[in-house]
Amino acid sequence: MSPSPNRFSDLEIDAVYRAIAERRDMRHFKPDPIDPETLQKLLLAAHHAPSVGFMQPWRFIRISDKTLRHKLHQLVEEERINTAQALKQREDDFMKLKVEGILECGELMVVALMNDREKHIFGRRTLPEMDLASVACAIQNLWLAARAEGLGMGWVSLFDPEKLATLLNMPTGAKAVAILCLGHVEAFYPRPMLEEENWAKRQNLDDLIYDNSWSDKKEENKIT
Amino acid sequence: MSPSPNRFSDLEIDAVYRAIAERRDMRHFKPDPIDPETLQKLLLAAHHAPSVGFMQPWRFIRISDKTLRHKLHQLVEEERINTAQALKQREDDFMKLKVEGILECGELMVVALMNDREKHIFGRRTLPEMDLASVACAIQNLWLAARAEGLGMGWVSLFDPEKLATLLNMPTGAKAVAILCLGHVEAFYPRPMLEEENWAKRQNLDDLIYDNSWSDKKEENKIT
Repeated sequence: MSPSPNRFSDLEIDAVYRAIAERRDMRHFKPDPIDPETLQKLLLAAHHAPSVGFMQPWRFIRISDKTLRHKLHQLVEEERINTAQALKQREDDFMKLKVEGILECGELMVVALMNDREKHIFGRRTLPEMDLASVACAIQNLWLAARAEGLGMGWVSLFDPEKLATLLNMPTGAKAVAILCLGHVEAFYPRPMLEEENWAKRQNLDDLIYDNSWSDKKEENKIT
Repeated sequence: MSPSPNRFSDLEIDAVYRAIAERRDMRHFKPDPIDPETLQKLLLAAHHAPSVGFMQPWRFIRISDKTLRHKLHQLVEEERINTAQALKQREDDFMKLKVEGILECGELMVVALMNDREKHIFGRRTLPEMDLASVACAIQNLWLAARAEGLGMGWVSLFDPEKLATLLNMPTGAKAVAILCLGHVEAFYPRPMLEEENWAKRQNLDDLIYDNSWSDKKEENKIT
């Protein structure tokens, strides 16, 4: 098995793995603005994500209005309380976590699924939710590019999408799926914040890989 | 606005953007197997994706059984016909497209959402579909790492998830969202295959960016 002639250089390969390994879901930001040229590059990276049937269902709403930013923060705060109550025995643990950096980050953006998606059938007849998968790939591109640029990002999904749609005058059929906090950070967390805070543990990768069937997972099925 | 001290080197940054720009949804493969150590690195890259509430909902089912591979191909072929018929006036155009490389690729994998997801409420009370967003981020990590390694990948979503669940003995509540064709390729398409084949055009990024509201898109809202 010789290496592929289409392979990047070792240094380039390491850089891609480094971005993947050091990307974090950030909640702590410095208020400094993002250089507009860099922001444009990040959005272009997002736009080069794969999309089902090349439908490119992603829409980006930049929140530059201060009052609107506060309204978004309030919306998330409402859902934070609702989530805490729904978590029952973990309510106190959850309430101690910092779950967003909406008021601090240099750039705030909402990412939404476009309206009129029902006419896109390619790859979606049995799995209509592939549009969301495409948008998630776009956000992951943006996230990795931001990490390489030294910028932090946090994906906040603690909000009522209908209330957010009203705030942003979204048309029927469009749906917000992310409030993205983007900006400069003091430092990146060494491990995922929810791991650091003992909310959950990193699972063992081998336990998540099966061979030909969901049920036949055995210790000897390791691929190394 | 000075650059971030957390910034990668210029060469590393370029490598991340290169992987993003040159990643393609591949349908043409050479049959050579993937080096097991590389495959393990790709899966580890997937496992380092962000996940809502750190739930890590991704499961990977490697398809090494030849008969099973043929059954998966048949399942996709069935859905390809159904999709073509649903597309009506674009049926002929669609039928000319190569939509998968299941029988040719060196490594075939199904990616699924785990079962028992309903107890994970963090970030999902109002947006339960964030589990799929997490799995999509994992697949995008794998895709970008594969591109850097010179390996091609294709995400096939043309299948009936219930029939696939039966084939793979998946428990109730688990759901397959991707058949991934992974392997060596002769060359990467210079542009997305669906763009090359005139199925759809790349949209203008500026048209997808709004400012504070869905409705106030104007030419002067460009961020550059």
